[in-house]
Amino acid sequence: MTSEKNSSLGEFQLIDWIDQQVGPSERLSLGIGDDCSIQQQQAGQDLLTSTDLLLEDVHFKRCWTSLYNLGRKAAAVNLSDIAAMGGTPQALYLGIGRPSELSDLDMKELISGFIYEAQLHGAELAGGDTCSSRAGLIIAVTVQGLVGQGSAICRDGASVGDAIYVSGTLGDSALALQQLLADEPVDDYLSQRFHLPTARIELGQMLSNKQWATAMLDLSDGLVSDLGHILNASGVGAEITLESLPLSQAFQQALECDADLIDLALAGGEDYELVFTSPLKDLADQAEIFSSVTRIGTICQQPGLHLRWSDGRIYRCGKSGFDHFS
Amino acid sequence: MTSEKNSSLGEFQLIDWIDQQVGPSERLSLGIGDDCSIQQQQAGQDLLTSTDLLLEDVHFKRCWTSLYNLGRKAAAVNLSDIAAMGGTPQALYLGIGRPSELSDLDMKELISGFIYEAQLHGAELAGGDTCSSRAGLIIAVTVQGLVGQGSAICRDGASVGDAIYVSGTLGDSALALQQLLADEPVDDYLSQRFHLPTARIELGQMLSNKQWATAMLDLSDGLVSDLGHILNASGVGAEITLESLPLSQAFQQALECDADLIDLALAGGEDYELVFTSPLKDLADQAEIFSSVTRIGTICQQPGLHLRWSDGRIYRCGKSGFDHFS
Repeated sequence: MTSEKNSSLGEFQLIDWIDQQVGPSERLSLGIGDDCSIQQQQAGQDLLTSTDLLLEDVHFKRCWTSLYNLGRKAAAVNLSDIAAMGGTPQALYLGIGRPSELSDLDMKELISGFIYEAQLHGAELAGGDTCSSRAGLIIAVTVQGLVGQGSAICRDGASVGDAIYVSGTLGDSALALQQLLADEPVDDYLSQRFHLPTARIELGQMLSNKQWATAMLDLSDGLVSDLGHILNASGVGAEITLESLPLSQAFQQALECDADLIDLALAGGEDYELVFTSPLKDLADQAEIFSSVTRIGTICQQPGLHLRWSDGRIYRCGKSGFDHFS
Repeated sequence: MTSEKNSSLGEFQLIDWIDQQVGPSERLSLGIGDDCSIQQQQAGQDLLTSTDLLLEDVHFKRCWTSLYNLGRKAAAVNLSDIAAMGGTPQALYLGIGRPSELSDLDMKELISGFIYEAQLHGAELAGGDTCSSRAGLIIAVTVQGLVGQGSAICRDGASVGDAIYVSGTLGDSALALQQLLADEPVDDYLSQRFHLPTARIELGQMLSNKQWATAMLDLSDGLVSDLGHILNASGVGAEITLESLPLSQAFQQALECDADLIDLALAGGEDYELVFTSPLKDLADQAEIFSSVTRIGTICQQPGLHLRWSDGRIYRCGKSGFDHFS
C-alpha cells in the first residue's frame, strides 16, 4: 500500500545513514541491511529476548521531550528487561512508524538517541523497520541479551524468609508524569527520572554472577503490581514496611505537602528500577552495591502483599498496578 | 499513562490465555510471562533475527480480512525473512497496539491466527507486548531463526554468469491489492495470495543445505527493488527476460485485458516469494524443487537491471520499487 510522501530521505537512504552511525559490528556476523541480522551462537550461554511497544499519546507525548531523549528512553526501557534477568545486552531492533510531520532531522535525532543509549550499555542496533504512520509516532523495540546458561533470574524463585530489595528510588517518574499531565512545573530531577530512566544492567549482572537473587523483575508497572508477579509466580506473600521505601529528596518534599503521593511510589509505574528477593539479609551493606539497593521487606507464607507502617498499622494502596488495558 | 478501559480482559489475563494456547515450550527454557524469553544457545548455529511493523491503513485495512487471517499474515511475512536467509524459524514475538473497538474475541482471533501460522512452520510465540492504541491496530513482530554457522544466504554473493530464479508466481498479491483499493471484485486465488502469503521456508532451507544459492532475498517490495538490492550489494547487474516471469493463471487473464499490469509482477510488492542467484543453470529441473522455481534471467557485469522481451526490445518498468516513505 502506498503512503504519503513525507520525506526527501527514502527508506533505503535512511538505512544507509543508520549503517554509518552504527559502524562495523563487533559481535554480529551481520548487522543492518539484509533480511535478518546474524549472530554466532555460543555454547554455555542463554539468549534473552524481550519486546516493547511505545505509542504516542499512550506512552509519551512528543511535546514533553526531545526526540533524542525519546530514542534514549525507548532503548533504556527495553535494556531494563535484560537487566531484570541479570543479562548482558547484545542487540536492539528498532521499528518506527513515522508520522508525516516528522522530518528527516527528527528521525535522525530519534535514532541517534536510541543508538547512544544502546552503546552506553555495550549493545548494538542490529536491525529494524521503518514505515509511514497515519496515526502518530510508533516505536517498536526488541532487545536481545546473553546470560550464563541457567543463570537468568526469573520471577518464580522467591522463598519464605527472603529479604526484598529495590534499587534506586521509587515514584519519581510517576510524580513527574502526574505533574506533566496537570501542566504543572516539573522538578528537573523528577523530569530526568521520567524521560531518561537508567537500565540497571550492572546491578543485574552482579546479582546473577554472585547468585545473590532468587527472583527479580524490573519495575515498569509499579512495585505493587510487579512484586505481585513475583509473589504469584513463587506462591508466597510479602510484608513491606512503608517507611523503608527509598524516596528521592524531590519526592519526599512533594510527599510532605500531599501524603497520598505515597501511592505513586507503590504503584506509579515506569520506575525501571529492579525489585529482587535474596536469602541474604544485609545486601545493602555489601561494598559492591553499597547504597544502590534498599531492603523494603520480607517474603512471608501468607499470600498477598501486606503493606504496613512501622507501628503496625495496615496501609491499603489507593492505586492498583498500572495496566495498559484498564 | 492510563488509557481508556476497553476490555473485560486485562493485560495479564490475556497473557495467561496466550500461555494456554501456546502450551509448554519445546525449544525455549522459558517462553511467555517473564521479563524475557530464554533460549539455550547452540554452538555451530547462527541466530537470525528480523523485525517488522504492520500498521492499519498503511499495510492493511481491517475490513478486507478476518483478524485470524491478519494474524497469520503478520507471522508469515516475518517468517519469510527467515526463509530468505535459508534458516529454520524458532521463535516469534508479537506486539499489539489495541484500538478501543477491538473486543477480547477479536484479540484472541488475531493471536490465534498468529500462533497457527508460527506453529505451521515449527516456530513458537515466545513473548510480546500489548497496550492500548488511540490510532488503529498496530502489529509489531520480531522473528528468530537458526541456520548452520556461516550458511546463511546473504544478498551480496551474486556473481556474473549466475542464473536468477524466483519461487512461485509474481504480481498476484499486488493485483489483488489494486482490485481491493478500486473496490473491484477480487479473484479468490489472488485474494488468498494477498491475505495468506506462504513463507518459503523449506525451499530456503534446501538452498542453504545444498549450498545452491549465492544470494537470496524475499520479495516484499517487488522484484525490481529487491533484486536491485542483490545487484547493489554484489556489485553486478542483471538481465531479465519478461516472458520468463512466472505468472498465475488469474494474473495472466488480467494481463490479457491490460498489458500494463506486467509492472505489478515486476514491482508490485508483497509477493513473499524468494529471488535467488545460483551458478547452477538447471535448478528448475532438479527433482527436489521441480516446478517450484523459475529461471528468469542471468547476472551480468553491466550495472543495473536490464529488462527485455525475448525479441530483444528493452522494457522500462513504469513503477519503481515499493518504498514505504514515497
